[in-house]
Amino acid sequence: MSKEPVFETLALIGLGLIGSSVARAARKHGLVRTVVGHARTAETRQTAMGLGYLDRVEADPAAAVADADCVMVCTPLSAYPSVAEAFAPALKPGAIVTDAGSVKGKVARDIGAHLPDGVALVPGHPLAGTEHSGPESGFAELFDGRWCVLTPEDGTSQDAVDRVTALWRGMGSEVEVMTAEHHDKVMAITSHLPHLIAYTIVGTAVDLEDDLKGEVVRFAATGFRDFTRIAASDPVMWRDVFLTNKEPVLEIIQRFTEDLTALQRAIRRGEGDTLQDLFTRTRAIRRGVIEAKQA
Amino acid sequence: MSKEPVFETLALIGLGLIGSSVARAARKHGLVRTVVGHARTAETRQTAMGLGYLDRVEADPAAAVADADCVMVCTPLSAYPSVAEAFAPALKPGAIVTDAGSVKGKVARDIGAHLPDGVALVPGHPLAGTEHSGPESGFAELFDGRWCVLTPEDGTSQDAVDRVTALWRGMGSEVEVMTAEHHDKVMAITSHLPHLIAYTIVGTAVDLEDDLKGEVVRFAATGFRDFTRIAASDPVMWRDVFLTNKEPVLEIIQRFTEDLTALQRAIRRGEGDTLQDLFTRTRAIRRGVIEAKQA
Repeated sequence: MSKEPVFETLALIGLGLIGSSVARAARKHGLVRTVVGHARTAETRQTAMGLGYLDRVEADPAAAVADADCVMVCTPLSAYPSVAEAFAPALKPGAIVTDAGSVKGKVARDIGAHLPDGVALVPGHPLAGTEHSGPESGFAELFDGRWCVLTPEDGTSQDAVDRVTALWRGMGSEVEVMTAEHHDKVMAITSHLPHLIAYTIVGTAVDLEDDLKGEVVRFAATGFRDFTRIAASDPVMWRDVFLTNKEPVLEIIQRFTEDLTALQRAIRRGEGDTLQDLFTRTRAIRRGVIEAKQA
Repeated sequence: MSKEPVFETLALIGLGLIGSSVARAARKHGLVRTVVGHARTAETRQTAMGLGYLDRVEADPAAAVADADCVMVCTPLSAYPSVAEAFAPALKPGAIVTDAGSVKGKVARDIGAHLPDGVALVPGHPLAGTEHSGPESGFAELFDGRWCVLTPEDGTSQDAVDRVTALWRGMGSEVEVMTAEHHDKVMAITSHLPHLIAYTIVGTAVDLEDDLKGEVVRFAATGFRDFTRIAASDPVMWRDVFLTNKEPVLEIIQRFTEDLTALQRAIRRGEGDTLQDLFTRTRAIRRGVIEAKQA
């Protein structure tokens, strides 16, 4: 690895799981010289500063980005317009703005529209996370061996794309470039639908009578457990994902519901062959996932 | 642990993941002196015998149970009536018959109805498994620290229940006794619905256009991955679970679908509070699961 940092100064807007992990990983691998952080609440700023991986925290997003070569927005999606509006006037000419959000289609509108000329926007999405949130849950290895998808619009400076790529590669990620629209469609299936389903099924259990609910928790290690982990993910982040990626998510819920209804019908009619046939075909996908080293 | 085995001779009808794990665990902990196995196909019998944890395999279920103090049925649920009919006449007086199936409501009918007087039936369900199947996938530690639920009918010999309990405890399990009806209702929620949902969501992905399907496999590590593991479970076993536990499963699918429809509506209308409220409540269930040491 080169000793030259990718960016002199990195500003992180949002210091939760992702922001604090980027700070740790970028520092650990010598990818930046200075890391400045901003968080909305004094409590988060204080916690993050106390963890020792930031050079400075700022209550004002504009003060956080003033010296930055790269600004990464790591807040929930719903905060994008307000933070972008707040920090945009303070950006240095030639600065690069990126983000780490789970939905990419609206970044050009919610952040890009606020940026001055001469500032490049390279939206990004690290496919990494845990069910924990907050600055203390971050760790430097979070992105190691995981994908990071970048969705720059046509005409974005190649140098800006290359430098954001270098930052993520330096933190151990494999980088893939695609359109925002394609990204949002793929994630609706691989990530947003599974989370919605997990939230739903755990929610169904929450509403059970108390005695049955106790039994469900006790005997969770039979399938349900995996869903409870997914359904413990950050509520605000996921609220924003579903509100922001509305159309692709509604489209895939529709397909899923049709498929579930067909299975429900097969169960009601006792059509064992229909069930066995599907359950056999789904095994092939698991093999694909194992071969793609994503298991 | 006492040096006295719980059973002199254990007959295992079915030598897949569960049967072969019972054979290994019972032998490892000195819970039985002799283990006899039966499997339907010559190939499975040969593989199982070659693994070295059986004293004998028999092509005829009746021959397998002839000397047994305990017979454990470990086949898919749909084979219960035919194997029970085949081995019942050969049972020793005083033998105990048990099973390891995932649905308990019909064991009394599918096995119990065939048994001669003087033979006790103690249905059982170890809440343990992996997505792998076949005799070579078994291992002695599968039941260690897991629950085993027993569902004897009223009037079953307490000695028989105690001895089956001792067998499972000896293999490391915690044993819980409940009615078959209650078991099937709890499992419909904690196990059967999660598996059905995982099969459905992976099936939805199977039906995608090829390019999108490739992307789904590549970017599986974002929620989808956990579902592919569950949806790689044994197709015949799971077909039988859904056909056998039809009513409780249809009832819980109905509740789940209502809840999913409500979320779909909230997404369509942009009702963020409804989403965030549910996503916050589901976190509490995860804490319960962690406290119950099922995580």
